[in-house]
Amino acid sequence: MVRFAVLGCGRIGRMHALNLARHPRAELAYVYDVVDDAAADTADATGARRAADIDEILGAGHVEAVLIASSTDTHLDLLVRAVEAGKAVLCEKPIDLDLAKVDACWARIKERKPTVMVGFNRRFDASFKALRDRIRAGDIGRLEQVVITSRDPGPPPLAYIEVSGGLFRDMTIHDFDMARYLMGDIQAVHATGANLVDPAIKEAGDIDAAMITLVAKSGALCQISNSRRCAYGYDQRIEAFGEKGMLQAGNQRPTTVSFWGAAATEARDPVLNFFIERYTPAYHAEIDHFVDCVEKGAAPLVGYRDGREALRLADAALDSMRTGQTIRLD
Amino acid sequence: MVRFAVLGCGRIGRMHALNLARHPRAELAYVYDVVDDAAADTADATGARRAADIDEILGAGHVEAVLIASSTDTHLDLLVRAVEAGKAVLCEKPIDLDLAKVDACWARIKERKPTVMVGFNRRFDASFKALRDRIRAGDIGRLEQVVITSRDPGPPPLAYIEVSGGLFRDMTIHDFDMARYLMGDIQAVHATGANLVDPAIKEAGDIDAAMITLVAKSGALCQISNSRRCAYGYDQRIEAFGEKGMLQAGNQRPTTVSFWGAAATEARDPVLNFFIERYTPAYHAEIDHFVDCVEKGAAPLVGYRDGREALRLADAALDSMRTGQTIRLD
Amino acid sequence: MVRFAVLGCGRIGRMHALNLARHPRAELAYVYDVVDDAAADTADATGARRAADIDEILGAGHVEAVLIASSTDTHLDLLVRAVEAGKAVLCEKPIDLDLAKVDACWARIKERKPTVMVGFNRRFDASFKALRDRIRAGDIGRLEQVVITSRDPGPPPLAYIEVSGGLFRDMTIHDFDMARYLMGDIQAVHATGANLVDPAIKEAGDIDAAMITLVAKSGALCQISNSRRCAYGYDQRIEAFGEKGMLQAGNQRPTTVSFWGAAATEARDPVLNFFIERYTPAYHAEIDHFVDCVEKGAAPLVGYRDGREALRLADAALDSMRTGQTIRLD
Amino acid sequence: MVRFAVLGCGRIGRMHALNLARHPRAELAYVYDVVDDAAADTADATGARRAADIDEILGAGHVEAVLIASSTDTHLDLLVRAVEAGKAVLCEKPIDLDLAKVDACWARIKERKPTVMVGFNRRFDASFKALRDRIRAGDIGRLEQVVITSRDPGPPPLAYIEVSGGLFRDMTIHDFDMARYLMGDIQAVHATGANLVDPAIKEAGDIDAAMITLVAKSGALCQISNSRRCAYGYDQRIEAFGEKGMLQAGNQRPTTVSFWGAAATEARDPVLNFFIERYTPAYHAEIDHFVDCVEKGAAPLVGYRDGREALRLADAALDSMRTGQTIRLD
Repeated sequence: MVRFAVLGCGRIGRMHALNLARHPRAELAYVYDVVDDAAADTADATGARRAADIDEILGAGHVEAVLIASSTDTHLDLLVRAVEAGKAVLCEKPIDLDLAKVDACWARIKERKPTVMVGFNRRFDASFKALRDRIRAGDIGRLEQVVITSRDPGPPPLAYIEVSGGLFRDMTIHDFDMARYLMGDIQAVHATGANLVDPAIKEAGDIDAAMITLVAKSGALCQISNSRRCAYGYDQRIEAFGEKGMLQAGNQRPTTVSFWGAAATEARDPVLNFFIERYTPAYHAEIDHFVDCVEKGAAPLVGYRDGREALRLADAALDSMRTGQTIRLD
Repeated sequence: MVRFAVLGCGRIGRMHALNLARHPRAELAYVYDVVDDAAADTADATGARRAADIDEILGAGHVEAVLIASSTDTHLDLLVRAVEAGKAVLCEKPIDLDLAKVDACWARIKERKPTVMVGFNRRFDASFKALRDRIRAGDIGRLEQVVITSRDPGPPPLAYIEVSGGLFRDMTIHDFDMARYLMGDIQAVHATGANLVDPAIKEAGDIDAAMITLVAKSGALCQISNSRRCAYGYDQRIEAFGEKGMLQAGNQRPTTVSFWGAAATEARDPVLNFFIERYTPAYHAEIDHFVDCVEKGAAPLVGYRDGREALRLADAALDSMRTGQTIRLD
Repeated sequence: MVRFAVLGCGRIGRMHALNLARHPRAELAYVYDVVDDAAADTADATGARRAADIDEILGAGHVEAVLIASSTDTHLDLLVRAVEAGKAVLCEKPIDLDLAKVDACWARIKERKPTVMVGFNRRFDASFKALRDRIRAGDIGRLEQVVITSRDPGPPPLAYIEVSGGLFRDMTIHDFDMARYLMGDIQAVHATGANLVDPAIKEAGDIDAAMITLVAKSGALCQISNSRRCAYGYDQRIEAFGEKGMLQAGNQRPTTVSFWGAAATEARDPVLNFFIERYTPAYHAEIDHFVDCVEKGAAPLVGYRDGREALRLADAALDSMRTGQTIRLD
Repeated sequence: MVRFAVLGCGRIGRMHALNLARHPRAELAYVYDVVDDAAADTADATGARRAADIDEILGAGHVEAVLIASSTDTHLDLLVRAVEAGKAVLCEKPIDLDLAKVDACWARIKERKPTVMVGFNRRFDASFKALRDRIRAGDIGRLEQVVITSRDPGPPPLAYIEVSGGLFRDMTIHDFDMARYLMGDIQAVHATGANLVDPAIKEAGDIDAAMITLVAKSGALCQISNSRRCAYGYDQRIEAFGEKGMLQAGNQRPTTVSFWGAAATEARDPVLNFFIERYTPAYHAEIDHFVDCVEKGAAPLVGYRDGREALRLADAALDSMRTGQTIRLD
């Protein structure tokens, strides 16, 4: 039984807290949020104790693991404090928006060989995992091309966009990690951004659509397409092409029902609408993997370096978009 | 080059005439119809000569083959005369509505060992043929169950229904032949009919929906579902289930385009709307096979006995519907 | 919080016990099985108390509901005793194999207006439920035809077949209930059975494949196809055809991955392999509905009469198979 | 009746000659090839006259139209001579490999306002055309993203690669034209090439895989992925994403048959294997459109400028691949 505290009780923190409360090998000891009501609500829903402050949690010897789901600008500080208090950490993405700070943080904690996992939930999606396992099993021979489609149903609030670090760091960061999950490390990045969805996003200094090309160190190529708005739901697809064939992982729907009528045939439901709905089983599997790692002292499948590399790709994409140049990474 | 005459220039006869006129190894010498305008129109469209009467065609020594597409009640008479004049015959289905007459006709002509083919066009559909070839190749092991879905987009004119011999002899007859094509001879028939589409069809003495169960001599089972009206087009599907798996042949559409929107996703076109449209390549392949048979003196894949057996199954279905009893065939 | 006892800790009883133990508004107080080890194992897995005998459970005033998952021949006796002890009952299907006993049981308990639900889990499948909801919402206009495909991945042990009451009462009973769920009451039944899978099943006196036709009181027609063995998994599909179109509910798979290669394209995973796997969410929803009914004193969506009618259809199917006759129900 | 000559009787020229010979409003008067046997074979197959030389064709007053399907380096010379002899011209792609020569040619002939069509056959594919028509009809609102997948089943002979002008000018040129067909003119190009298929292609100085990003003047974005080898056939797909939804046009197969077995389910046929097979109806529609234009003196849907712009995009892609820079077009 691994005892947890959840820091940050917003939408994603609350979901993790509920998942931990139901996990057979985890116990949710504490929750905390700077907003009292959020913490109280999650404490009520889970039966966890509401901590008076972070120190109460870090000082609690029976708490082995901390899940950080607070606002991005607090991640690094909490991560360092938790690690220094001897806790294992599962930190939501992105670790931070500043690569230099991310590296400085690691320099500070690395001697402790901490158990740190970054919340790239999509790696735990059964279909994406099966796709990767089949690539590794040789089903399509050498992997040559990856095509990632990733479109949100609707843009986040403008207030969020202003602090999100921009589309590449906030949204594409998942796709950068997925590219690395499937193809390994990346050696070149080219990105094109556009404002096609909402002029207010442009005014806020961000783009709302993008197409990105990656070249992996293996030589394989990758295309990513992003949009901040998608009429038919949360569009999450991956295609992997190799010398012997292709694997595709498609969208998911609430039912298998299709309709045949005078105007259209085989019409299916809209796809699952957003990330918590679409990735519910993935979030469970993510927590399960982290609990395993804490119990066994094993390294998580997605560690600090993965969080750092995805951020680095986001920075390179931003640089490419601004200069029009392909950015090479060493 | 096989020289042809087409008897009957209605919708289906005109189509066959056009297909023959374009066939590289056939020549359409004559067309004939009791309605002068129909014959004239088809003659114009194909460049064929319009015969003054049937005798002109039967007496023309260079005409080797006759395609009978006139009204059902004229089939047997024309077939006998054509065979006795030494012609090969491709006769549209059904041969006749009266099994006794069908048998009497065969008794009269069989000594001549005539080349007679019956127009069960669906046997020449590439998908149904591939499905049968794969059954025979053992892809699904022993064939155990066949499910045939066969629904017309809309009912024929009432005037036709009154002379058609009823749904089983006019429409299901194709499905009975398909069942025999896939499963071999049939030993038992059960049929249920209903009036669900149009009360006028009931008043005309016919049903407009049916579900039929067949048992093949091999032991395999078959279900057929029919409707005289189908909102999404001409529904033509087959499923073959066996010990090692299942083969399905699906509907066909004019394009591969699908639409994803807020109300539905992956919505495809309505299916091809009716028989000439849906089975265009099958009608070409049917003619091509018949030309082959005439050139080589070979027996057609679908002969007089196949036309007779399908009619016999229709009669058994009618008997079953009236008595509620499963009808056994010897 | 509804307090439960589970009677019978075989495969299905154990599953229900686990589902109840995790349900937020249920508490599993007792489990019982005539086989001590089965009861002990389920008690261990759920934290429930292992009852010494049935009377301990029936005498426990705080137990409000009993789930009967013991062998079929014990259902009626337990059901009566539970009802007479004032418990609500969720009884696995079939209630019994003898229609006369089923009716006698109801005559004995009906005055108590008991809360009795029968475990037709498929009614709680999200896709089948959505299909029915859309029929009722008028998406396809008047319902005219239903096609149910229901094939088990492999036959049960012969020992089970010998006591199961035969394919119609054991397996098709779910499809009979589904037909009633979609079409309402049935007025005529025709059934054809065959031995295509395993000669040992024939020796045990049962069939292993069947095709059934039903006519609903509404006039709608239904076809069911069954097999005790299916190479590609647990085949569970429904098609509903009406004047304005068609709805289909398809099979389910563990992932969305498809493979494109030299030999085949768009190849999907085998379908979910068996009932507990395929209907996991349906079993949860079934329990949830029953808990709701007990809490609110409401009548379950699938009651004693539904269990009785499905058995009656099974009996009629058996009669039809033996006589070859369509069996009319009043 | 439009009288034609076909110049060049290789694979594609021979196909066009056969299509013209069967076209109801065209007559194939002459064929010509520098290789006598090729010309003789096509003349035999079509009944056309084999011209002694080009001049015989250009001097034949009854020849109204010339189809140029000879090697790329002869296109411009033949095109000029045909136009100056007063013929309408349908020229296979690419017009030439040298943009300056293409522009010089136009400068020379433009005063004549010639009827010149370029052989971008994919514009005449029914599915791609339907996709474009539905974009224009507003089905997906404003067009924002296009994703073109275009993978050949296998590389051409090395001898061809050496004179083809490279993957962008030979293969992607179709995709560049498709992007313009769907999105209008392009303002920026970025291309990444790779050698993943065959080292001999690299030695010949070409790439065999590519990913390209385009930005249209409308602001819409486009991704193209190319490979010279594809295990499952000729992969030709288009996805168009807009504010109200998405349209996809998929691959095509010889039959609708799918297989369900223990290892995979719903497995479809490999896709149609190569361009003549896949685009047979498109080639017919292309010829039909050109015959229409000649008869009516109308401008073809795909004219000289379209051929020029696609080549310009290929040049820009090459430039981008060499420099890593996004290339802006004015």
